[in-house]
Amino acid sequence: MADERFYQNTGPYTVQDLAALCGATLGENVDPNQIIMDVAPLHKANTGHISCLHNPKYIEQFKTTKASACLVSIDYAQYAPEGVAVLLASRPYRAYGQVAALFYPPLKRGGGVSPQAAVHSTAKIGKNCYIGPFAVIEEDAIIGDGCEIEANTVIGSGVELGKECLISANVTISHALLGKRVVVKPGARIGQKGFGFHMDESGHLNIPQLGRVIIGDDVEVGANTTIDRGAEADTIIGCGTRIDNLVQIAHNVQIGENCVMVAQSGVAGSTQLGRFVVVAGQVGIAGHLSVGDGAKIAAQSGVMRDIAKGETVAGYPSVSVRDWHRQTIALKKLGEKGN
Amino acid sequence: MADERFYQNTGPYTVQDLAALCGATLGENVDPNQIIMDVAPLHKANTGHISCLHNPKYIEQFKTTKASACLVSIDYAQYAPEGVAVLLASRPYRAYGQVAALFYPPLKRGGGVSPQAAVHSTAKIGKNCYIGPFAVIEEDAIIGDGCEIEANTVIGSGVELGKECLISANVTISHALLGKRVVVKPGARIGQKGFGFHMDESGHLNIPQLGRVIIGDDVEVGANTTIDRGAEADTIIGCGTRIDNLVQIAHNVQIGENCVMVAQSGVAGSTQLGRFVVVAGQVGIAGHLSVGDGAKIAAQSGVMRDIAKGETVAGYPSVSVRDWHRQTIALKKLGEKGN
Amino acid sequence: MADERFYQNTGPYTVQDLAALCGATLGENVDPNQIIMDVAPLHKANTGHISCLHNPKYIEQFKTTKASACLVSIDYAQYAPEGVAVLLASRPYRAYGQVAALFYPPLKRGGGVSPQAAVHSTAKIGKNCYIGPFAVIEEDAIIGDGCEIEANTVIGSGVELGKECLISANVTISHALLGKRVVVKPGARIGQKGFGFHMDESGHLNIPQLGRVIIGDDVEVGANTTIDRGAEADTIIGCGTRIDNLVQIAHNVQIGENCVMVAQSGVAGSTQLGRFVVVAGQVGIAGHLSVGDGAKIAAQSGVMRDIAKGETVAGYPSVSVRDWHRQTIALKKLGEKGN
Repeated sequence: MADERFYQNTGPYTVQDLAALCGATLGENVDPNQIIMDVAPLHKANTGHISCLHNPKYIEQFKTTKASACLVSIDYAQYAPEGVAVLLASRPYRAYGQVAALFYPPLKRGGGVSPQAAVHSTAKIGKNCYIGPFAVIEEDAIIGDGCEIEANTVIGSGVELGKECLISANVTISHALLGKRVVVKPGARIGQKGFGFHMDESGHLNIPQLGRVIIGDDVEVGANTTIDRGAEADTIIGCGTRIDNLVQIAHNVQIGENCVMVAQSGVAGSTQLGRFVVVAGQVGIAGHLSVGDGAKIAAQSGVMRDIAKGETVAGYPSVSVRDWHRQTIALKKLGEKGN
Repeated sequence: MADERFYQNTGPYTVQDLAALCGATLGENVDPNQIIMDVAPLHKANTGHISCLHNPKYIEQFKTTKASACLVSIDYAQYAPEGVAVLLASRPYRAYGQVAALFYPPLKRGGGVSPQAAVHSTAKIGKNCYIGPFAVIEEDAIIGDGCEIEANTVIGSGVELGKECLISANVTISHALLGKRVVVKPGARIGQKGFGFHMDESGHLNIPQLGRVIIGDDVEVGANTTIDRGAEADTIIGCGTRIDNLVQIAHNVQIGENCVMVAQSGVAGSTQLGRFVVVAGQVGIAGHLSVGDGAKIAAQSGVMRDIAKGETVAGYPSVSVRDWHRQTIALKKLGEKGN
Repeated sequence: MADERFYQNTGPYTVQDLAALCGATLGENVDPNQIIMDVAPLHKANTGHISCLHNPKYIEQFKTTKASACLVSIDYAQYAPEGVAVLLASRPYRAYGQVAALFYPPLKRGGGVSPQAAVHSTAKIGKNCYIGPFAVIEEDAIIGDGCEIEANTVIGSGVELGKECLISANVTISHALLGKRVVVKPGARIGQKGFGFHMDESGHLNIPQLGRVIIGDDVEVGANTTIDRGAEADTIIGCGTRIDNLVQIAHNVQIGENCVMVAQSGVAGSTQLGRFVVVAGQVGIAGHLSVGDGAKIAAQSGVMRDIAKGETVAGYPSVSVRDWHRQTIALKKLGEKGN
């Protein structure tokens, strides 16, 4: 399926191999040695492909898929068309992700340090790193083993990257310490001076921004996202957190582990998010607030107060999602009545 | 008018030349050989300038303009001051655009491939291309004839550009196929991995993103805009579509021909827009939705349902613009009454 | 306090030195020759540190701070713990900014013009400039004395920078004239073509964008922010204005002196802002509007009408902040009643 100009298929694999990889159980009468060539979505799959039913709304596609094999939960396995090798998985989409990553592992760039990169003599570059043309590594930066730093990216003086980070092209990082396996997509800006100044009638006076950005292991930072360094404290992104494109994270913000921030959302200065918080697209969170573990914030919400652990909020200003639905319905009725 | 440091005026032209170019008709008693030196807005124009009345709200400026010539629709021609050469056009602003582009055609960069660019030996570069210093063209990329690729831009391996594309400075493109005459403004990111993962209590597992970005002819992509590649399917931008700055387009989104997306708007994954859809500034459109041909979405709307062909919506959550006005008025009254 | 990998402390200084710098008065019994080593926030400060009480909500931290000295207004000086050297200041936070900037002045890059930069032979580079590797300075650009232009930044042909500008890495500037001491953070895009075209059923026709961007002295432009050049007139940013990250400023916008635009806000074409206007995060301002001096616009507001001098507005569409509070409360009540 995947365009060979951009992706390399490492297959084929047997059904048995794939089931073992992702912890799936083979259905009755499945030949464990059946050969699978590729992954594909249900409606596009064909002979030799493995697919996945991960959402009941696609059950009709499942019933008619031409895939040779399919990952499915036990609840829906009965709907498999005849001849499809069923792989039972408790979390079929997660299993599919593992299988797809086996067929198409991330491509590692070889070639070492480009002679066209500008690497300062005091920078420490780990083993097996790739550094692309016109990348700049400044004084005393420390790059962990197996890092890839793509073309035209600038790593500022003193910055540290843990092992196996992937820093895409045209990125800027300064005043920051990154963990292991951090992925930074193209154009992200990390560690620049935050928006800190004193304002009065005589104009604005800068307050020096003297903190850092600390990013945990396995974080992903989206394209053209901006993360300012701390003013006094540090800006902190917890391990495993995923940040989408065009997100703004202001100075001193602390984000816990495994949070999700969808595109174009923003967090103002000094706000703290717990673990597993989900911030949907275009949400704005005001400064100096606290958002509890597992809280969920609906798209475009404007958060102006603390949010408790596990709470789901929506609206502007944000309220509980239940209240927001009530308000939306009430306003709708009012609009109909009033005219 | 235009600053000579940045623009080159190719004039002068005769009134007759300009009328022929844009399909305008000369008014009565207009000397077809009258010389026009430059373009200018009504209130700044002077002798030798051609201007344009494209909005009735500027009719007072029209009545007193010092321009030597003016493009105007027949409905307003009667208000032309004495001595102004009238050029009658059914769409005066469009005609003005054509005239202005004659005086100030886009400047083409000469100079071929910079010796300071990093062009891979397997990349195919068309005829008459410009490739700026520190641009990077990776393996097997194909660059069409007459393309301009400015400084510090990175074109990833396997990417194809049709002829006469203009890729501005500091852009990143990967996993993408572009049509002809595509304009990409500075800092845009096209083709990076989308925001796809499976989330549960054990953390996030990436789902490999195996699609591409397909961009049609004559598309424009704004500065610092981000367009993620597809997960399984492709992300598609139809011919002639205009995308403004800081726009987010997620994986698998399909946008039809001649759409307009204004700055800071965003479309979540797998949503489809028809043809001639207008998405105003800071709009958010949720994932897996369908927006019909010719639909219009007002600024800052939050779209959470499908939108029918030709519909105009506003609000959060978005409703028909008529309902939105009613709700806004009702809420205003309620606020006044309640206090 | 500050990480030595990123910051250099120029101290120590005497209390007397610091008071003189920021115009503070020493409290009773303060030894003017007491030595101060560093700055720190109240709750982190220790012996040898100077801190600051700038917000009454931190008064408990003030009462127990271990700082050796503290900037405070006369109203709260009585709460200073015993032994803390009190420096009385009418605006303690501003004074603190001055003191912190003494300890940690902005680091100037030495090294002159990198041999790896591409500086056109017709460009004029002032004295004592720094130009980083892979920076590009195009034809006829004029760079003022003492400017720093970091790696991978592109300064287009004809652009002028006043003295002592700091242009960070991976920035693109074209068609622009900048004043003195302008700070541009990484990834900002200044001077690209605006979003100007004529749209009808036959598709979009570009209107040539023939203006410039004019930026006054002491302006700061945030990371990945976009400022389009004017179409006929210029896009103008007044002296002292502070623009945060990911902000969109469309063609022909005029912003007065000392305004503040917080992250992810946007201003559509031809709108004018007066002096000292504050635009909070994620605000959208429609085109062709006028916003008076000293107006304040609350976060996420959608501004669709002119705003008077000194007015504070909120909401979508924006109304006076008083009306917005009334509407929010009325809607809340309605939601509770209606269910």
